[in-house]
Amino acid sequence: MGRETFKGYDPITLEELDESFCDGTPEEVNRAMDLAMEAFYKYQELSGIKRAEFLEAIADEIEALDDELINRVQMETGLPEARLIGERGRTTGQIRMFADLLLEGSWVEATIDVAQPDRLPVPRQDLRRKLIPLGPVIVFAASNFPLAFSIAGGDTAAALAAGNPVVVKAHPSHPGTSELVGRAVIKAALSTGMPEGVFSMIHGSSYAPGNALVLHPDARAVGFTGSFQGGKALYDLAASRPEPIPVFAEMGSINPVFILDQAMEKRPTEIASQLADSVNLAVGQFCTKPGIIVLQENKALDAFLQSLSRAFAQKIPAAMLNTRFSKNYHNNIERIERRKEVKFLHQSQVSDKTTDVIPVIASVSAEDFINNPSLHEEIFGPFTMVIICKDKHHMLQLARQLRGQLTLTLMAEQDELTRYRELTATLQQKAGRIIHNGVPTGVEVVPSMHHGGPFPATTDVRFTSVGTAAIKRFVRPVCFQNWPENQLPDDLRNHNPLKISRNVNGKWTKSSLS
Amino acid sequence: MGRETFKGYDPITLEELDESFCDGTPEEVNRAMDLAMEAFYKYQELSGIKRAEFLEAIADEIEALDDELINRVQMETGLPEARLIGERGRTTGQIRMFADLLLEGSWVEATIDVAQPDRLPVPRQDLRRKLIPLGPVIVFAASNFPLAFSIAGGDTAAALAAGNPVVVKAHPSHPGTSELVGRAVIKAALSTGMPEGVFSMIHGSSYAPGNALVLHPDARAVGFTGSFQGGKALYDLAASRPEPIPVFAEMGSINPVFILDQAMEKRPTEIASQLADSVNLAVGQFCTKPGIIVLQENKALDAFLQSLSRAFAQKIPAAMLNTRFSKNYHNNIERIERRKEVKFLHQSQVSDKTTDVIPVIASVSAEDFINNPSLHEEIFGPFTMVIICKDKHHMLQLARQLRGQLTLTLMAEQDELTRYRELTATLQQKAGRIIHNGVPTGVEVVPSMHHGGPFPATTDVRFTSVGTAAIKRFVRPVCFQNWPENQLPDDLRNHNPLKISRNVNGKWTKSSLS
Repeated sequence: MGRETFKGYDPITLEELDESFCDGTPEEVNRAMDLAMEAFYKYQELSGIKRAEFLEAIADEIEALDDELINRVQMETGLPEARLIGERGRTTGQIRMFADLLLEGSWVEATIDVAQPDRLPVPRQDLRRKLIPLGPVIVFAASNFPLAFSIAGGDTAAALAAGNPVVVKAHPSHPGTSELVGRAVIKAALSTGMPEGVFSMIHGSSYAPGNALVLHPDARAVGFTGSFQGGKALYDLAASRPEPIPVFAEMGSINPVFILDQAMEKRPTEIASQLADSVNLAVGQFCTKPGIIVLQENKALDAFLQSLSRAFAQKIPAAMLNTRFSKNYHNNIERIERRKEVKFLHQSQVSDKTTDVIPVIASVSAEDFINNPSLHEEIFGPFTMVIICKDKHHMLQLARQLRGQLTLTLMAEQDELTRYRELTATLQQKAGRIIHNGVPTGVEVVPSMHHGGPFPATTDVRFTSVGTAAIKRFVRPVCFQNWPENQLPDDLRNHNPLKISRNVNGKWTKSSLS
Repeated sequence: MGRETFKGYDPITLEELDESFCDGTPEEVNRAMDLAMEAFYKYQELSGIKRAEFLEAIADEIEALDDELINRVQMETGLPEARLIGERGRTTGQIRMFADLLLEGSWVEATIDVAQPDRLPVPRQDLRRKLIPLGPVIVFAASNFPLAFSIAGGDTAAALAAGNPVVVKAHPSHPGTSELVGRAVIKAALSTGMPEGVFSMIHGSSYAPGNALVLHPDARAVGFTGSFQGGKALYDLAASRPEPIPVFAEMGSINPVFILDQAMEKRPTEIASQLADSVNLAVGQFCTKPGIIVLQENKALDAFLQSLSRAFAQKIPAAMLNTRFSKNYHNNIERIERRKEVKFLHQSQVSDKTTDVIPVIASVSAEDFINNPSLHEEIFGPFTMVIICKDKHHMLQLARQLRGQLTLTLMAEQDELTRYRELTATLQQKAGRIIHNGVPTGVEVVPSMHHGGPFPATTDVRFTSVGTAAIKRFVRPVCFQNWPENQLPDDLRNHNPLKISRNVNGKWTKSSLS
């Protein structure tokens, strides 16, 4: 058959799991895309209520998998049960959040300017605009959130909610989990009468199936969460198409934390412990992990570094999500160890399990950091680097050199923000979310969340991949001019049958047109 | 000096105009970008009221140029005075529309989810999001609207309103007009105390200055209106940068008009005359000009074609905006004349002025149109092509083959839309604006307008270049987490000092937070 097959494995025991999975063939990719395109014309015409039913059924089916799902994810990822139960809740929660958004209905941004037949020199036509779906969306599942950013994760939920069929490229590090969740989605589609092809899943341990999906002429957008290399390659591929399509790649960042003088002097131990916890969450495999900690030489420096070392010493070595990650982590740490300008502050107790990775803190001067672009790259895993600045000016200089980030954090006493106004203004330019006295890990799924940031954190700074606004990636406006009332979509009809909030002649209202 | 210089010329007399203009040098490009970046930090911090003052001053300064401006544009473009006075009104009107948007203030989409300190298992942090400017924006002026899509046109107004400094690449076909309007903007910036560098203009008769602007590391977005070749080249250039930036290129389309059976039988003369007027507006140089007319063989066909020919015969040959356009137009018509499958329905009276171009109607069978992709390309100028379908099925097939368009128009009796449901659903997928019983020319500047469309009509289907929503191209969201109240921007403060509409805990309100 010439077909690539692969198996999942337990990242803790390294034992291969039973089932075999097959890379999607070019024929399967084409079949999935053909079905998606056929489904699109039917699916986009369904009401928000029908699509919400589908989403709710997906959440129900995922929950119905119960322990079978949790056990499988655990086997494939080594993540602790409590974390996975939490992540499942987040996954079904965000699917239901999009269902609620559809039921409320105002997300289509209905905007109406009525005709002015007597306007001079020419009459004004009736114009009505709403958001409509783009067409088939390709979603690349991530490995670090095997539920919340995978088969039925945020990208899939947002794209389906908007009215787009979805073809997911499953991540090879949890194929059995993907299979279970994929079947749950299909079951939900069948039970709620969705058109065939509204959802498909393609496995792939090589790049070929994913690339074929992105290059398929009917693909209309791509969602991706993963490495810079992966995201940028897809971005370039999509831009090379005869008809370029948008790629929303969330590619991670080093999430710098700036500790200002007074804050460090006042609470060195508290801040150290907060940061140690955040760096080590899920073995350092969150895209919002604080990768560098920027501070100034001051009298609390030693106390802070000691507290940080002590807090790291209490963290227990553990396995990463797959052996590729732990191999990369080891290589990165070795690469950094070889640099004479970098000091190692702490290396926690050694583990005798070869699969475990050791939490590490390094430190480097601001000057050396600025002069070595390779130190600005994300290191996935329980690693962070303390950057020591001589003074305030140095800190600002460093901030200006930073590349785009998902988050930036300031540990600061209140009046320090006023004194560091230039710094905060600079940081605002560099990130999608700026945090005061907190940690960047823990991305709330709420309307005000922005999970995104300037390149290279993402490929499109204007969109979030978490929260209700994530739906905006997969829609486009269409304007109906002088369209007969009985042919308009419900959102735009005079009597506002969906009772949604609309912009009518420049004012937001839920009223019907008189 | 090795510096490129060029002069404007009168496209009717072909006489060269007095003044000489210089292509921007690499040093000038760098200087403009450095100043823009410096200005950015100051400009983005100004209140909406201050920025609105600047915009209003620009509109006032443009009006103060009075006849000097109109005379100069007329010399450089050959467009009639009445049209130019109208276009000036549209230009200042849209600048003031953005000023009003800033004064109202709700456009920043302020979204607030307050903290839930008692939430289990972990407290929820206070999160507040708003839109902020991207940074220096490069605007490429178009030739066909020397005021409304040029130096102080929609792109510039939208980018400045959002808080971005702008560097405009002037169009070489109206350099004197550009100079006048550019100086008016600078005057307005000075009189309202804007930071130096908030606006710069670079001339360029070659590609070099524009390319250098797009490749400058501080450029954050590009606005463009013009040809497919130009827009796609800039898109590719921007995607090739180490940090890719978005290009909003409006590249035109053939704006197909579908005439359904009953409509054609009922009002052949009326429709023919509407379309003839629309095709010939401004010598066929609107990006929304109907480039193809799709209809079915029926008993009204001859009457319609005769009416269309008669209406075209009354149109007077005239000069296009520049000799490059008229040369292209002649070449295109010759290229089409040579194709045996294309018939010429009408060629209006010949003019003895070599600068004039002649309105032309061609016709071709749907089959031949579908099989010849080169016939799908836009021909700038007073040309349209009638596509004759055998039946309804043929028409749908043709619709499915269309590339992305700015507009699609249906001439239809009301109950015909129901009978042609599949056709209208298809057309909705292909365009940004769909029109019933009207013409695509005449783009209203209102909130509900969408002037954009699927590739190759534009490079980003999600954004409009006309209307208030055009501001969304040049902004990005930023989320403040746990930010101290007194350090938040006014839009996000508890007491809502700007009295704007905000999404607070999932509900839109103008109230302050209790």
